[in-house]
Amino acid sequence: MANYHKPDEKNLQGLKDVANKLRIHSIKATCASNSGHPTSCCSAAEVMSVLFFHAMRYKADDPRNACNDRFVLSKGHAAPILYAAWAEAGFVKESDLLNLRKLESDLEGHPTPKLPFVDVATGSLGQGLSAACGMAYTGKNFDKSSYRVYCIMGDGECSEGSVWEAMAFASHYKLDNLVAIMDVNRLGQSEPAPLQHDMETYRKRCEAFGWNTYVVDGHNVEELCKAFWNAQQFKGKPTCIVAKTFKGKGLRGIEDQLNWHGKPIPKDKVTELLKDIQQQIQVPNKTLSPELPKEDTAPADLSNIALASPPAYKKGEKMATRRAYGVALAKLGRTSERVVALDGDTKNSTFSETFMKEFPERFIECFIAEQNMVGVAIGCASRDRTVAFASTFATFLSRAYDQIRMGAISQSNVNLVGSHCGVSIGEDGPSQMALEDLAMFRAIPTCTVFYPSDAVSTERAVELAANTKGICFIRTSRPDTAVIYSPNEKFEIGVAKVVRQSDSDLVTVIGAGVTLHEALAAAAVLESEGKNIRVIDPFTIKPLDADTILASAKATGGHIITVEDHYKEGGLGEAVLSAVGQEQGIVVTRLAVTSVPRSGKPQELLDLYGISAKQIANTVRQKFAN
Amino acid sequence: MANYHKPDEKNLQGLKDVANKLRIHSIKATCASNSGHPTSCCSAAEVMSVLFFHAMRYKADDPRNACNDRFVLSKGHAAPILYAAWAEAGFVKESDLLNLRKLESDLEGHPTPKLPFVDVATGSLGQGLSAACGMAYTGKNFDKSSYRVYCIMGDGECSEGSVWEAMAFASHYKLDNLVAIMDVNRLGQSEPAPLQHDMETYRKRCEAFGWNTYVVDGHNVEELCKAFWNAQQFKGKPTCIVAKTFKGKGLRGIEDQLNWHGKPIPKDKVTELLKDIQQQIQVPNKTLSPELPKEDTAPADLSNIALASPPAYKKGEKMATRRAYGVALAKLGRTSERVVALDGDTKNSTFSETFMKEFPERFIECFIAEQNMVGVAIGCASRDRTVAFASTFATFLSRAYDQIRMGAISQSNVNLVGSHCGVSIGEDGPSQMALEDLAMFRAIPTCTVFYPSDAVSTERAVELAANTKGICFIRTSRPDTAVIYSPNEKFEIGVAKVVRQSDSDLVTVIGAGVTLHEALAAAAVLESEGKNIRVIDPFTIKPLDADTILASAKATGGHIITVEDHYKEGGLGEAVLSAVGQEQGIVVTRLAVTSVPRSGKPQELLDLYGISAKQIANTVRQKFAN
Repeated sequence: MANYHKPDEKNLQGLKDVANKLRIHSIKATCASNSGHPTSCCSAAEVMSVLFFHAMRYKADDPRNACNDRFVLSKGHAAPILYAAWAEAGFVKESDLLNLRKLESDLEGHPTPKLPFVDVATGSLGQGLSAACGMAYTGKNFDKSSYRVYCIMGDGECSEGSVWEAMAFASHYKLDNLVAIMDVNRLGQSEPAPLQHDMETYRKRCEAFGWNTYVVDGHNVEELCKAFWNAQQFKGKPTCIVAKTFKGKGLRGIEDQLNWHGKPIPKDKVTELLKDIQQQIQVPNKTLSPELPKEDTAPADLSNIALASPPAYKKGEKMATRRAYGVALAKLGRTSERVVALDGDTKNSTFSETFMKEFPERFIECFIAEQNMVGVAIGCASRDRTVAFASTFATFLSRAYDQIRMGAISQSNVNLVGSHCGVSIGEDGPSQMALEDLAMFRAIPTCTVFYPSDAVSTERAVELAANTKGICFIRTSRPDTAVIYSPNEKFEIGVAKVVRQSDSDLVTVIGAGVTLHEALAAAAVLESEGKNIRVIDPFTIKPLDADTILASAKATGGHIITVEDHYKEGGLGEAVLSAVGQEQGIVVTRLAVTSVPRSGKPQELLDLYGISAKQIANTVRQKFAN
Repeated sequence: MANYHKPDEKNLQGLKDVANKLRIHSIKATCASNSGHPTSCCSAAEVMSVLFFHAMRYKADDPRNACNDRFVLSKGHAAPILYAAWAEAGFVKESDLLNLRKLESDLEGHPTPKLPFVDVATGSLGQGLSAACGMAYTGKNFDKSSYRVYCIMGDGECSEGSVWEAMAFASHYKLDNLVAIMDVNRLGQSEPAPLQHDMETYRKRCEAFGWNTYVVDGHNVEELCKAFWNAQQFKGKPTCIVAKTFKGKGLRGIEDQLNWHGKPIPKDKVTELLKDIQQQIQVPNKTLSPELPKEDTAPADLSNIALASPPAYKKGEKMATRRAYGVALAKLGRTSERVVALDGDTKNSTFSETFMKEFPERFIECFIAEQNMVGVAIGCASRDRTVAFASTFATFLSRAYDQIRMGAISQSNVNLVGSHCGVSIGEDGPSQMALEDLAMFRAIPTCTVFYPSDAVSTERAVELAANTKGICFIRTSRPDTAVIYSPNEKFEIGVAKVVRQSDSDLVTVIGAGVTLHEALAAAAVLESEGKNIRVIDPFTIKPLDADTILASAKATGGHIITVEDHYKEGGLGEAVLSAVGQEQGIVVTRLAVTSVPRSGKPQELLDLYGISAKQIANTVRQKFAN
């Protein structure tokens, strides 16, 4: 092991001076915006100074360079000190700091990737470390590069379980290129954090979760330099630096006091307090420069990722869409080595194992920790290093809804795949049935929602998702269903398929997944009674093909029936209502699950909850009695 | 401390025999249903036997008795062994066990409170311990009773962060009436759990999180008896029993093998394997009875909880609805000592602190761990012991969406309150803005969604929520808004208010929260231009008052405009579309947030995202140009 060389006094003083400059910037900016969290910035000032001007290697004029060390400010409310650090590094104009939180400035209340030096948005606490894990896993295993990943967390957010999911993940995968810093400033928003300054308990927790751990004085730049150096040498484990700090450090009368969270320094105090800090700066005009990174990260080409071979199914063949997902993902893996997959110990149910068996080195088992899985996937996909697909039962993605929501703010292109949707899973019962996932994903503004109904369209959905910006969600089903498209059928986002029609259709029936097949079965029965219905497969629920639906509705007397294996709120039915809501003369009848379901056989449940072929046929018969 | 007395050999043999009977029941039941998780049952057989027939005190003929010890099977997929235990205890008919997972049986794939011996539904992993924490907190602090709480978790689910949120919570509040049992059977669904049989790491983690911890052989009834006895004596900390077990224990060729998760024993093996187990039972016809509980839990009256005094605001007075929430909750606290409140370190923002200041002994600070907070609240409200209100920023309830979803399956009456909705929070930016919460809660089948628009209606919403079955969600807003109702105004669930109307209204505008006030401001401006609009306050978004909306729409030429501080999907607009979707001749125009917003001043943002008075007025002007 190399020997540690203490930085010389001049350098240490430089780091101390920068820390105080960061404090001053943070205080001035939050005074200018008259909102924000200066005391949360002050506790992290030395950590930020040492990170940005001693430990981290990056190009200050090219923050998103693939070779740079990564930095995640998990305690996103300390945004002003992040902006200040980039001002000290020369990337942000110092005068811009005073535009904090203004409508026309990208220096928002919490960091977002509108800023080139931010990879993932933070501000919902406890999420940064998962993203950092994804970056570190990618650096170590996919990029095989020397860049390192640093993540600052607050002590308050360490109450979030997602932090401990990430802690377990990082040690399990020996991410020794990852350093977490816990800024233990003792005070939360409304009272002290539960462990206050009990540093030994923090140490025990971190060590029990498999981390190399150093407890340090977080306001001592020398201790910090040494801890980061030690972290860099340590192999086989991630390092956690547990930094004892004080909220509002350096602010007389405010430091270590409650009731200062999220409050700018009052006007009558600020001049004097700034003077205090200013006086500690010994070399005001000195600027420090970060060390440059090693240039060892190859470019990654994420464009035009295609299925290695077209879908190979015969019409009528039975194949669950979840199974087709695995086939398609493996095919993408063959054409692009940047395609990676993650799962939460359900890979033999979601069929991501089909990919894993072919590309074990590109598969990340995240165990039963969906929040972290989604965060890791977002981290893997950040800075356009990989195209990541993460899968579990669709209903368990509800566990990660906050991460998904933040993923949209992060401008993430992550792909999420949820199997086992709806009552059609059968005997396992309601806890395993996704009946709210369409509502959940439709309300994510950057999200494309795929709901393929057969194996061919599933393969194309997977291919489209790999090439689509924003979050993509693919909803797959458990039961085997018939292949209805020929292998060369073309699919586009926002383009529906009219899968059955005649000149005398009474009504347009829109189904997806199992309910499309129920609709087709109903159509066959009704035809024998002399009643024709038009059947539409929307393919994507968001965007929804309003033109095809409207044209079809107009051709069928304005009558639409929607059938969905989902609750009535926020799913296919409301998406259709949204599409036709501004048109006169269209009436939408909706069949959907309207109460908490129970265990039973899939077909029994489709029937009981009113979304089976029989119920569709009955609805048509009632509306169009001879 | 009392001395431990080892149970005599006869009793120990009885417990061993019961364990094997439970195995046999579990295997037979899952063979009958041809689905389910017999191997996950077998690892827990001795733990279940010792719990149900040695450690726990309860009335086997009255499972929901308030004095009984509580039991939560967090690893809900082991449901068959729970049903088997209640069969051995005499509450479930043994023959019914073979109806497992059938449509007509309440013995579902995973446990739900349709069964009187289940308090909270499980099946989404990692949630049981939070509910158990809520029960234990209630037993210790609200009921002040001697009942104890037991929770069995699987090792796989210990990867869920929510488990560690609960672990931290339980030790922080010294819940020494709580015992968690980790059934460490080594194997997950698709591969070994990350720690396999590394019992010492489990021990370290539990101890670091503040628990009294025993590592035991989970198939040794004597060790288990002793551990439960020790747990009962131990004061000041919760106890975790980390039980080393084997998945499929007792099943030759299956025990400790991968690829047996969720699979019934094949028909060609089952006879022989059952014979193996049967042969180990020494006294087949002996039945064991549980010890009875102490009768020290008083009845709790949760009926007719009312505000101690009516709302006391003047019309026109400015008051944020979040602030009125705190006032109302304190008033409920004065009339019922069973009203309790929880928060996630945001009490000075949600104003639950108003309650806390008056009733500190009924306030639970859950710190920044929303999943656990919701789980604890569900636990507190279980068995009708308390009326629980849990609050945080509305968008952070997305963190607990899976818990909320499971809360509906649990038939929970918990009340959730989310502040800081929408872009109107301003400078903090998108990470803090709830714009998907209405979509999220509307898709919960048992949920009533309140969206009060002034302080008076907020107080009534809180009062109604306290008395309403199912989950209630109350959406509150950050900005101060004018009081528009008189103190004696009556509010009902599903009844909207027409807050402004004339004989010549061009259109019905529906707003809620800040957008109702924007609509009223638009109405004032438009009136001066000779254009009248009708303005509706829906009060509850679910159920929505379709009758009032339809009648109003018909009176205004079929024209509706909805305005919401929420994304366009799943919120107010789609709720209105749902209500009018089967009517001819109604056209709904929707103003809503359609992209990820940014930081700015509240009014700037309302304008930028098209939901301000100005934008409403412009929409009306465009639609009704002279």
